[in-house]
Amino acid sequence: MNAAHAPLPAAYAVLIAAWKRVSLLGAVGKLLGWDQEVNLPPAGAPHRAEQQTLIAGLAHEWRTDPKIGDLIAAAERCGLPPDSAEAACVREMRRDYDRAVKVPRPLVEEMARTHSLAVAAWQEARKKNNFPAFAPWLEKNFSLARRYAEALDDGAGSYDTLLNDYEQGLTAAALDPLLGRLREALPPLAREAMRSRRSPNQDLLNVPFPKEAQAAFARDLTSAIGFDFTGGRLDESAHPFCSTIGPGDTRLTTRYSGRNFKEALYSTIHEMGHGLYEQGLPPEHRGTPLGEGCSSGVHESQSLFWENLIAHSPAFWAFFFPRLQAACPALASARLDDFLFAVNKVEPSFIRIQADEVTYNLHILLRTGLERDMFSGRLPPRDLPGEWNRRFHDLVGLDVPDDAQGCLQDIHWSVGAVGYFPTYSLGHLNAAQIETALRAEVRDLDRLLARGDFSPALAWLRRNIHQHGRRYEPADLVRRVTGQPLSPEPLLAHLREKVRFYYGAGR
Amino acid sequence: MNAAHAPLPAAYAVLIAAWKRVSLLGAVGKLLGWDQEVNLPPAGAPHRAEQQTLIAGLAHEWRTDPKIGDLIAAAERCGLPPDSAEAACVREMRRDYDRAVKVPRPLVEEMARTHSLAVAAWQEARKKNNFPAFAPWLEKNFSLARRYAEALDDGAGSYDTLLNDYEQGLTAAALDPLLGRLREALPPLAREAMRSRRSPNQDLLNVPFPKEAQAAFARDLTSAIGFDFTGGRLDESAHPFCSTIGPGDTRLTTRYSGRNFKEALYSTIHEMGHGLYEQGLPPEHRGTPLGEGCSSGVHESQSLFWENLIAHSPAFWAFFFPRLQAACPALASARLDDFLFAVNKVEPSFIRIQADEVTYNLHILLRTGLERDMFSGRLPPRDLPGEWNRRFHDLVGLDVPDDAQGCLQDIHWSVGAVGYFPTYSLGHLNAAQIETALRAEVRDLDRLLARGDFSPALAWLRRNIHQHGRRYEPADLVRRVTGQPLSPEPLLAHLREKVRFYYGAGR
Repeated sequence: MNAAHAPLPAAYAVLIAAWKRVSLLGAVGKLLGWDQEVNLPPAGAPHRAEQQTLIAGLAHEWRTDPKIGDLIAAAERCGLPPDSAEAACVREMRRDYDRAVKVPRPLVEEMARTHSLAVAAWQEARKKNNFPAFAPWLEKNFSLARRYAEALDDGAGSYDTLLNDYEQGLTAAALDPLLGRLREALPPLAREAMRSRRSPNQDLLNVPFPKEAQAAFARDLTSAIGFDFTGGRLDESAHPFCSTIGPGDTRLTTRYSGRNFKEALYSTIHEMGHGLYEQGLPPEHRGTPLGEGCSSGVHESQSLFWENLIAHSPAFWAFFFPRLQAACPALASARLDDFLFAVNKVEPSFIRIQADEVTYNLHILLRTGLERDMFSGRLPPRDLPGEWNRRFHDLVGLDVPDDAQGCLQDIHWSVGAVGYFPTYSLGHLNAAQIETALRAEVRDLDRLLARGDFSPALAWLRRNIHQHGRRYEPADLVRRVTGQPLSPEPLLAHLREKVRFYYGAGR
Repeated sequence: MNAAHAPLPAAYAVLIAAWKRVSLLGAVGKLLGWDQEVNLPPAGAPHRAEQQTLIAGLAHEWRTDPKIGDLIAAAERCGLPPDSAEAACVREMRRDYDRAVKVPRPLVEEMARTHSLAVAAWQEARKKNNFPAFAPWLEKNFSLARRYAEALDDGAGSYDTLLNDYEQGLTAAALDPLLGRLREALPPLAREAMRSRRSPNQDLLNVPFPKEAQAAFARDLTSAIGFDFTGGRLDESAHPFCSTIGPGDTRLTTRYSGRNFKEALYSTIHEMGHGLYEQGLPPEHRGTPLGEGCSSGVHESQSLFWENLIAHSPAFWAFFFPRLQAACPALASARLDDFLFAVNKVEPSFIRIQADEVTYNLHILLRTGLERDMFSGRLPPRDLPGEWNRRFHDLVGLDVPDDAQGCLQDIHWSVGAVGYFPTYSLGHLNAAQIETALRAEVRDLDRLLARGDFSPALAWLRRNIHQHGRRYEPADLVRRVTGQPLSPEPLLAHLREKVRFYYGAGR
């Protein structure tokens, strides 16, 4: 008898139903968060913080209900085949439950209230380039992050504990050699590009292109790749993000810079990568761990795969450039080669989400170091601007002109996401390693891209990554998909080839 | 000793805190509803219905908690001065609580789920002019309305019971003579206008005016009148509405018709009237009955006051017409008199929210009669289109071309709002009677309007109506404000004067 066709034990079914009810309440909290970043009028911020606090506290109460613990224990005893999806689901529920019960409800509520108010304060502070207005919130958030970590790891309060919220199994000890390799290899590559006598014409990216027309083009492009707008949206927010409220409701946001359409375009493609992952999660497991993305590092691999490996490639633009020209008449006489060089320009810059692929991870090194120091107490959050600017100069070689282009540019610390930044680097490494595996199987990828056929690539991702949700732990999943443990070398090989292609002496 | 300065009894304070917590959860439900109509991707509808069901069921459980009943009883015994705001607040909580406890939670949940799915079905059906796709939802909603009324009035299931959800104290017996007077007086007035040899040039309202420019003008106009966008928004939805999520968060929507800018403009002004009421409710009572609008009929008086009595007047456009011309260059050479006649045209038409003031209430008579017959079982909901069209012809004299312009045009029955329509007629009557009272005090109103000074009118409404919330029952409030019981005569006098002004032989 095939275990897959055996009826599921009753205890498992009861657990799943209880879990889905908690997820449904959590989804309400997600809408509160999405709406705050996209729609909330400024005067509504205090009330929204109370709503967030109410729902977060209630969801925590439900999530940590001892009955859930009993149901998990019963499901663990009911003989699910160890390799089954259901056993993996119970394993992940056990993990989530054991972490959640360690955190007291008042702390969860204080975090929800503070993060909600802090993100509103950050939006204002960034707009007005006013770090002092945000500093007290930054202090509060790092203090809360410490209390949260201490609750989780019985007082140790380690950075590893925070990392594990985003990337199961990740430790600073495992992270450091990976980041160290990037720290060593990236600056020389950037210098190689900067020393070249070739330099793209950036004027191509600074042409009249009304916001509505940019949005319409972004919708066409993401639809053509496979993002399903009958179950999704594209909006504008202070910081681009992707949020899935529930099945059939995956929402992307972007940010229009006014001067340059590249930022909004690539932000949208990045968030679309997250959105494709979310839309590819198995519908039958929605509301359970198997219906969630594997980890932040794997999630970022999906956004960065599309943003960097695909949407910066000549094959991709062979298909989309004529469409872009149709959407943006100011580009009518532009040449594809010039456009490609312009979007692939390597140059140190201030804004992380606008950074080129070579210098991008220097921005992550900066943030990872700073948040570790603020978390440990070595760096008082009120001293962040000076320290940011000093280290930015060391890493990237530029002088930060103001905090809006410096330490106020990212939303993460305002929503208490301490430990998230390193997953962007993991995402870059994962994406390059995954692309290598994909190209080994989909051998005519460039030919397919050039004719606008994205379905083989998307189907490969769906089959190898999306459909599994959290069935495998992140490091396992990457090893299963690529046959190798995670390594910086595929990314570095990709970047070297790219620098050579655009900046090499042969051109 | 002044009772207003005595410390409030502890029982009252505990009750208020408990009530505010329920309101906070209710506010989450309001966001789910607003988002469904403004943002929700179609594929997200089933999940949204589950979210609505969860929150509605939970809010009902909290709202009907016997502890709340005990607190109300304690507050009733604690000697609040009978004329105080606090005593009125307890009176209204008693009313809400006694109604809520009669409704079983499963019925509340079934209504939430069904209404959420039905509104999604209605959006599609209206778009595709497909009544049969909506008919089963209409059946379900009227069946639920019957069960709901039966739960509330111990099995009688009367239409009066539903009316009382929207208008405390209203009965069909009190409503019928008011509607009867309109039924008798309006058609001859409409005929008088139609028989005139004068007729406005409607081409003025059908000029190129891009949606974004319409929205920008609407924002300028509503801001100038006093709507506060730091605590509000303006969006687009299938049916215009106003929703207050919480303090500092009042949201208007409108609908752009593409051909004619009048619909979006006056819908926005209408919803702004609701929004000004909401923004004028007393901040210290938010989350309690005193922080809510008095009734639907009073709420509609606020929207219709601005839409009809103010924003159709020559004085209003003396100020705004040059601004409209600046926002819409196609009107650059238009004459103010011609524009005024165009927006004040009296002519039978299909869409209620586009109807002129004279024929508008015929649309309400139609809907009120139809919903009473569907509610009583005399008219099976599946037979609605034929009956709608037949009665529409009798009342308005036109043949309905399709259901999208007929029985599918309104959102109300899809969200289960049976008993709401008559409050629009009450709103018209209230608005005209209130305007008479306001003009008796603000004697230079037209001069103020013509120079763009809206604050005296708004301040008068705030002082006489908004600040009271639900302190007075609706009929009482209108009598307090206007010195008279509600009567159709001020409205009819206003309409006769208007018809004479635009269509009279003297012009």
